[in-house]
Amino acid sequence: MNLVDIYLQLKGDVQYIEKELERAIDTSYDEMYKSSTHLLKAGGKRIRPVFVLLGGKWGNYDIEKLKRVAVPLELIHMATLVHDDVVDDSMTRRGSQTVRAKWDNKVAMYAGDYIFAKALQIASELTNPQIHQILAKAINVMCKGEIEQVRDLYNFDQGLKNYLRRIKRKTALLIAISCQLGAVASDASPDIVRRMFLYGYNVGMAFQITDDILDFTGTEKQLGKPAGSDLRQGNITLPTLYSISVGKDREKLQAWIRDNTLTDHMDEAISLIRKGEGIAYANQLAERYIARACEQLEPLPAGKTKKSLLEIGHYIIGRKF
Amino acid sequence: MNLVDIYLQLKGDVQYIEKELERAIDTSYDEMYKSSTHLLKAGGKRIRPVFVLLGGKWGNYDIEKLKRVAVPLELIHMATLVHDDVVDDSMTRRGSQTVRAKWDNKVAMYAGDYIFAKALQIASELTNPQIHQILAKAINVMCKGEIEQVRDLYNFDQGLKNYLRRIKRKTALLIAISCQLGAVASDASPDIVRRMFLYGYNVGMAFQITDDILDFTGTEKQLGKPAGSDLRQGNITLPTLYSISVGKDREKLQAWIRDNTLTDHMDEAISLIRKGEGIAYANQLAERYIARACEQLEPLPAGKTKKSLLEIGHYIIGRKF
Repeated sequence: MNLVDIYLQLKGDVQYIEKELERAIDTSYDEMYKSSTHLLKAGGKRIRPVFVLLGGKWGNYDIEKLKRVAVPLELIHMATLVHDDVVDDSMTRRGSQTVRAKWDNKVAMYAGDYIFAKALQIASELTNPQIHQILAKAINVMCKGEIEQVRDLYNFDQGLKNYLRRIKRKTALLIAISCQLGAVASDASPDIVRRMFLYGYNVGMAFQITDDILDFTGTEKQLGKPAGSDLRQGNITLPTLYSISVGKDREKLQAWIRDNTLTDHMDEAISLIRKGEGIAYANQLAERYIARACEQLEPLPAGKTKKSLLEIGHYIIGRKF
Repeated sequence: MNLVDIYLQLKGDVQYIEKELERAIDTSYDEMYKSSTHLLKAGGKRIRPVFVLLGGKWGNYDIEKLKRVAVPLELIHMATLVHDDVVDDSMTRRGSQTVRAKWDNKVAMYAGDYIFAKALQIASELTNPQIHQILAKAINVMCKGEIEQVRDLYNFDQGLKNYLRRIKRKTALLIAISCQLGAVASDASPDIVRRMFLYGYNVGMAFQITDDILDFTGTEKQLGKPAGSDLRQGNITLPTLYSISVGKDREKLQAWIRDNTLTDHMDEAISLIRKGEGIAYANQLAERYIARACEQLEPLPAGKTKKSLLEIGHYIIGRKF
């Protein structure tokens, strides 16, 4: 079974969620419409809704309940992407801060707010207070993660622990609660709810570590942006951290950082990291997280759902983009 | 009875809400802390919490329930202020888009998100689904209002109806649901809940119209920014709309707009609007909204709460800053 089969297995419901996503941000406000549907039309793997549906398979599967979890979670993810883009957008217009450029940023920020608000409105139809509490707490921690990410820009001294906490907040948590809330909304047992959270957390960590590897090893075509974009933007990820602290080229890299000349040697630095030991190290760590995710599933009954969850785990570390 | 007496009457509870607000965004994240507490320390009238408490007086007044409405509503208001400032901030740094400036904007945007998330987390402790639905729907409409405001920048052709819809969404709605949710959280009767919403809506409209008048008539010291800032930033409010369409100086103003030379005549334009008939017209409209707000209270029993609500209405149109 591969990823396509998993989507096929959930086909009708994934399409239903897709329609609900479109309906959620369908609006007559032109500017907003363009900003907020841009991402929707761009597609995406809809990995969070898929996890909600799979989590729901462990209890009384009810798509009407599950959509009120799945749609908000995907919308929250989209809202964070829109906000992440706001300031970068403004950078590309540097030197020409026209009214138009100002609008674009404002509209993008407010479009993010709007998508987020829409997510909450859909979730508010659910009456189970546990769901609201899990969701609200996770959003809270995610926002802290966003701020940490800004704080950690260009910070080459951060340790592995710092990196792991940041990607937990930035990525793993939303995937963890996607799995968890699918199970909660279906009244699965507390043991399964806990296992789904831990499965999602570990898969989410592996997902982000793989993303951070691909940013170095992918081609511009695969990534849709130049390789090494993270480092260029000051986002210090695991391959970089490993290369500058343990890797064989650490002295060269450290010298550039110390002398504040890294920008001048950016292409060379990216090339050193891509060929360095940090990539293999990160790959091993991602595999370890996937192994831990799969461990959580061990006691659960065999069947299509378990098979799908195991398959997704292996897809995540094997993917090329 | 004046405004001070109203605050004195609610004193203990207003202070309690203030403490809860501080606690809500107390965090060890330095950057975020500074961004998000900046506004908190700046104070403010806390008009929304006061309305929640007064709304609560019509039912079974329980400060523990009311704080879970009052604190989120004030935090949501603060989050919108933080986001409104994001792009303006970036404008003042025009030409020097340093990493530092970029951080500031990102941090401010994420700090707004964080304050918003915290609001939701506190509200999520309430189990009444009606409260979540009212809150979520209002936030949704507010976000549309924010986008409309961007869309309407420098649009001199917008009519009165457009202006009124915008300020309804931008300001009046949050005040309306402050009054309403205080009553809902206290299990007041549906008639009172409806009246409190309409009272708050009308007071909110008058509040924003008065704000828009003061932006022209206030001194720089009173406003904390130069008079006419709205127009300078392209925000077309009622005094301007009236002056360019009906006022005695309309032809002069229209010519500047048509010839795209308004910026060159900005000080003169602001002076014409300040001395023009638009101010009196806006004042009359604000008074009419306050009269309508007070009408909603007529059938309600006399007492301290009713007196306070009437007093606040009259304070709002009489205030100087």
